This record gives sequence, C-alpha cells and structure tokens, in this order.
Amino acid sequence: MADQCTRGSADIPDSIPALRWEEPPEGPVLVLLDQTRLPGEESELACTDAPALVEAIRTLAVRGAPLLGIAGAYGVALAAARGFDVADAARMLAAARPTAVNLARGVRRAQEAHAAAAAAGGDERTAAAAALTAAQALHREDAGGSRRMAREGLALLDELVPGGQHRLLTHCNTGALVSGGEGTAFAVALAAHREGKLRRLWVDETRPLLQGARLTAYEAARHGMPYTLLTDSAAGSLFAAGEVDAVLIGADRIAADGSVANKVGSYPLAVLARYHHVPFIVVAPVTTIDMDTPDGAAIEVEQRSGHEVTEAISPPARGVGGEAGGGVPIAPLGTQAYNPAFDVTPPELVTAVVTEWGVVSPVTEGALEQLCARSRQVSMS
Amino acid sequence: MADQCTRGSADIPDSIPALRWEEPPEGPVLVLLDQTRLPGEESELACTDAPALVEAIRTLAVRGAPLLGIAGAYGVALAAARGFDVADAARMLAAARPTAVNLARGVRRAQEAHAAAAAAGGDERTAAAAALTAAQALHREDAGGSRRMAREGLALLDELVPGGQHRLLTHCNTGALVSGGEGTAFAVALAAHREGKLRRLWVDETRPLLQGARLTAYEAARHGMPYTLLTDSAAGSLFAAGEVDAVLIGADRIAADGSVANKVGSYPLAVLARYHHVPFIVVAPVTTIDMDTPDGAAIEVEQRSGHEVTEAISPPARGVGGEAGGGVPIAPLGTQAYNPAFDVTPPELVTAVVTEWGVVSPVTEGALEQLCARSRQVSMS
Repeated sequence: MADQCTRGSADIPDSIPALRWEEPPEGPVLVLLDQTRLPGEESELACTDAPALVEAIRTLAVRGAPLLGIAGAYGVALAAARGFDVADAARMLAAARPTAVNLARGVRRAQEAHAAAAAAGGDERTAAAAALTAAQALHREDAGGSRRMAREGLALLDELVPGGQHRLLTHCNTGALVSGGEGTAFAVALAAHREGKLRRLWVDETRPLLQGARLTAYEAARHGMPYTLLTDSAAGSLFAAGEVDAVLIGADRIAADGSVANKVGSYPLAVLARYHHVPFIVVAPVTTIDMDTPDGAAIEVEQRSGHEVTEAISPPARGVGGEAGGGVPIAPLGTQAYNPAFDVTPPELVTAVVTEWGVVSPVTEGALEQLCARSRQVSMS
Repeated sequence: MADQCTRGSADIPDSIPALRWEEPPEGPVLVLLDQTRLPGEESELACTDAPALVEAIRTLAVRGAPLLGIAGAYGVALAAARGFDVADAARMLAAARPTAVNLARGVRRAQEAHAAAAAAGGDERTAAAAALTAAQALHREDAGGSRRMAREGLALLDELVPGGQHRLLTHCNTGALVSGGEGTAFAVALAAHREGKLRRLWVDETRPLLQGARLTAYEAARHGMPYTLLTDSAAGSLFAAGEVDAVLIGADRIAADGSVANKVGSYPLAVLARYHHVPFIVVAPVTTIDMDTPDGAAIEVEQRSGHEVTEAISPPARGVGGEAGGGVPIAPLGTQAYNPAFDVTPPELVTAVVTEWGVVSPVTEGALEQLCARSRQVSMS
C-alpha cells in the first residue's frame, strides 16, 4: 500500500530525489516523488509493498528507464524486508511495464543477490539485506553512470557541433526524475549549461502525458537553463529554420542491431533530423542495451489506454498518467484512439549511442556487443 | 457585438452549417457555430458588427481558410447593411489573421462589389445588397468547389493507391466546419467513405488546440466514418508500420512556387511521407493559391500566445482557442513557449495540389499559374 503526503518545494534540493529508501520504526518504505502531480505539486508516495509499487509504476508516478530499474530492485528488497514472497514480488514488478528492459534487470539483480545470500546459508534478514545492498549499489552506479554519460555526451557534442553554443532539442523527460543521478540525455544538456555552452534547450511537450512540459521544463527551470517549450509537431518548424544543432533523447530499450525504443515521437524526430542533416544522439546506460532482443521488430511496444488521448489531462490532480485519463473528454464520446507509448528508431537514423562506457558511432551490432563486453569485464574486475 | 445561445445537437443537420446569414426584425446578423465549444457543446454566436466577427476569428470560434474567406465577405456585407464604415470594417477584418490568404480575398470581393454598386449610382441599401450578393456567391461557389475537390481528390487517390481501400491520415480540421460545403481534404475522405473505399481515417489530434480531436473526430463520427484518433507524433509509428496509404491536408496559403502553409505539424508529416514513399496530397480551393507570394519564405506565419501550449485546454469552456489558454498551467509558471500556428512545406515534398479546377502534380510555379489562369477564364466566361 501507498501513503501520500505533500510537502513544500523548499524541502526538495536542486537534485530532486525521485526515490529514496527509509527505515522508520514502522518498517522499511520506498518513498517516491509522485511525478503525476508535477509541476504543480511536489508530493511523495510511500510504498510498503510490491503491489503499491506496481501501481505507482503503471500510473507513471515513478517512470523513466533507469529509475524503473532502481525502483524494481528496491521493490524486491522491500518485499524481502517485509517478509513477503520475493519470487512473487519479483514476477509482479518485472511485468509492470513491458518496454523498458532496465526494470526487469533491476528486479533480477536484487532477486539474485537475495537468492545467493539465502543459498549461502543466510537467514531471511541477511538475504533481505543482500537484496537492499544490491538495490543501493545499482542506485549508486546509476548516479555515477549519469556523470560519465554527461561527460561523454558533451565531448561528442563539442566534436559534432563546432562553435560550442548548442541549441539542443529533447523529447520526454530524461533528467534527475528518471535516474539515481542527473539523468541521461538531460544530463548532457545540463553539463553543457554548466560549462556555458547551452544556447537553448528546446523541450518537446511530449503528448499524451506531457512529460516534457510537466517534468523536463520543471527540471530545466530549477537549474536556470535557457529553455523553450513547444508542441511536438512544432519541432519541424525549428528544424526548417535551422534552429536545432542536435537532438538528444534517452532510450527504454536498445536492441542488438541498434534499434532504439523510446517515447513515442522519437522516431519522427529521427526522420526530421536525418532530413535536415542534424545529429540524432541517444543517451542511455549500458543496461538499456538488450542483446537478447535481436532487432526493432522484436521489441514489445506498450499500448496504453486511449483515454490518455481522448480525455484532457488536468494536473496536478492524481491520475494524470492513470488509465482513466483526466476525465474531461476532448473528443466525441466513443472515439477510438491509437496510443503506443513508444516507437522504434532504426540504427541507420541514430548518429550515436552515448553510454557510461563510451560512445558507439556508427551504431552497429558489433560495436554494441564490444561495449557490453567491456562493461561486463570492468564490472567484474 | 455577439450574442451566444446554445441549442441541442438534434437541431443541427448532418451538414453542419458553420455560418449563416439571418435577417430578423432587429437587423441582419451573421450566425456562427462556435467551434471553440465543440465537441461538447453546439452553440452559436450571432455577430452584429465587424468587431464581434474579428473577435470570433481571433479566438477561432470561426476558422479554416475557405470559411474565413466567406466570413470576411459576410462581415463586409454586415457592416454595409448596418450602416457602419465599410472601408474600416474591411481593413479590420482582413487583418484579423495574417496567414490564410482567403480571408483578405473574401473581404476584398465583397468590398469591391459594394464600391462598384456605389460607383454606379446605387444608394447605401443597393450597395449593401451588392456586398451581400457577393458574399452569398462566394459561399455557393465554395460549396460547389468542395464537391469538385472531393471528386478530383478521390480520382487521384484511386490512381495513386491501387486496391481502392484507403487508409488516409489527416491533420487539423478541413471538413464542413471550414467551408461553405463539405470542406477540402476531409471532403475527399468523406467521398471515399461514401463510395465504400475508406478503410481508415487516421486523425491527428493537432496540438495545441486539438482541432483534430475536437472537430475532425466530431465530423467523422457524425458521418459514421471509420476513424481513429492519435497524438500528432504517433503518426511516425503508423508510417513505420505501413498503415498509411496517403496523407491528405488542407492549406492556408500556397505560394507561387508551390510552398504550402498549413497548420503546424503538416511539414513533419510531409517529411515522414517522403521518407516512407507515401503520397502527400494538399486539397485547397484555387483562392488559396497566392501568386503574389513568391515562395515559402515570403509567407507570414502567425505566432500565437504561448498560453496555448503552457496551459491545459479545458473544453467545452469558451476560450479553448482564446489567447488566455485554458487557465490551468501544465508547465512551470513563467515557461516560455514557441507556438507558430502554421508551418511551410516546400513544393518538392508535395505530391499533388488538388483544387476545384483540377490537380497540379508535380507542383511547379508554371503549373500553378496555368491553373489560376484557367480558373479566371472560366469564371469570367
């Protein structure tokens, strides 16, 4: 179950904690910043079991590929610490959303740590502690990964876009709200800003759930970045006017062939970027690369409720991202909607994939495989 | 000034009158279906002077290039019939929105008819009657033009897309709500539906003001057409899946070189269509072609208030299309937005321009010039 409490903006530091683990006397809880209520309200959800976390994942109170991995790992630790069936919790959490590969990976990592401790003769408490340690390690690694992606990404930008004053277009939300650190694509723009190299961050509003307008604009405003919001389809006019130096997006899954599943609307940007000879850069941790998914066609794309399209969103009410939409119809009653949450960009349209282990460009199966192998070697050494 | 009254859906016939001229004992009025309140409410605005009509045009209570021309002509007739200064009214009406060339043309036509009658010695009443006759002629011609565009457009579709079961993607609203008849691009889809040749009409919601979700879906539902709504950027996924046989859009202005100004979001569709080898067809009356505008760069694109992007729209309240947005912020306060109402598609991305005087394909300055010359000859003969 989840409890909700609202607190003032002043309590939240510059690097907004999208989630945190707490151990009050009543027992451990996973506390989430409720992203469906942003930017109007900063309130938190305290999850005490896996079903509450699954609900938070499905309604998008917690979202974003890297953060879903961390949340999934903590969810397993929570179930273990509270004495629930860990295998049940893990199954339920891994299936909460189908497209982001990070979620199932985070769950598996904590579950394997739990199982290993139990197999080594540890009691329930020791096994639960091992699951928590695994989740915390993933959380820490993700923060470190953000820093490295930001550095790699900015170096790439400086190389691709001479002049050092970047006008970057981004889609959806890829900042501190999706990460243990400062995020993926957004972290690159933030690094550029800190070095005085960001001329403009163009923020796609990202229909239907407006993660760009609600979340990316919120993060950009907090950091004092020069940003401008636009409807997703106004991006075409910016490209035509020569106002975009590079597109920076995150990823929910990268297949072995380099196909990138990301928030719906990414693929049209990739096509526009190609037509206008603008670099299209994907920034994601290595855990997003799934060598078990051979190509784009093999990626399962989550189809969400048509209500997200046919009903007005009305933040900051709860349920912005919920299955019921905002409740106020904006289309005739009974209107059918096509509402894929993601789309797939083929590797030939991706200029580069930036990870914490380096940059892959051009994007080929061999290069991705090498990168993954390198990351595994270093992790084990 | 404008009066508002609401009436039930049952009163509105299948072919929804977007505007009508009435002469009650209190004096002539131009009655508009208030499009900002659709689809939730069918209410009418009665304009008794040019300033009320200008306000209705600016708030998009009345909109769509061909209908703006008709409304502008009736506005001049209204000013004349009510004894206002006709030149003043014409100036104000022509400047109400800058991009659609039809508006200024409709205004000029009624104004010239008024001036000609006055110059021929007619009194005020005769001159006002001449202006009204000109507006009514334009209204009738536009209805006839719709029928011819539908016929020409369907013939072209049958030629370009063999098999006769069309999956058509459209953007914004181009039906009876923008026309004296059944519209432009929408009229082609409707003709296909009536002949049993429409497999699916894909309706872009058309941010920021959702004319697709609110108006095109409303018209499609009334006609029983098979339609599906989508966010503008989900169109990319449809193209990638091979689910679009042709794109059909309207136009607000076509420059001499064939550049097409239309609702923002049209250009990204043109680029996607080209990338996927799908025909991109523009349907518009000849009056939309402006040989005095040499090319795309010379088209003035209306920039609208950022509130349309930063605030939630909340139909059916008045003001959906107004400058103040819906009032509920969906982005952080103070967020700056880029909000062009239109974009410009260069002729090389346009497969064909369908008019009531025939089809131009490929789209070249010479071919457009010939078409305009032919339409003028036939009109004068």
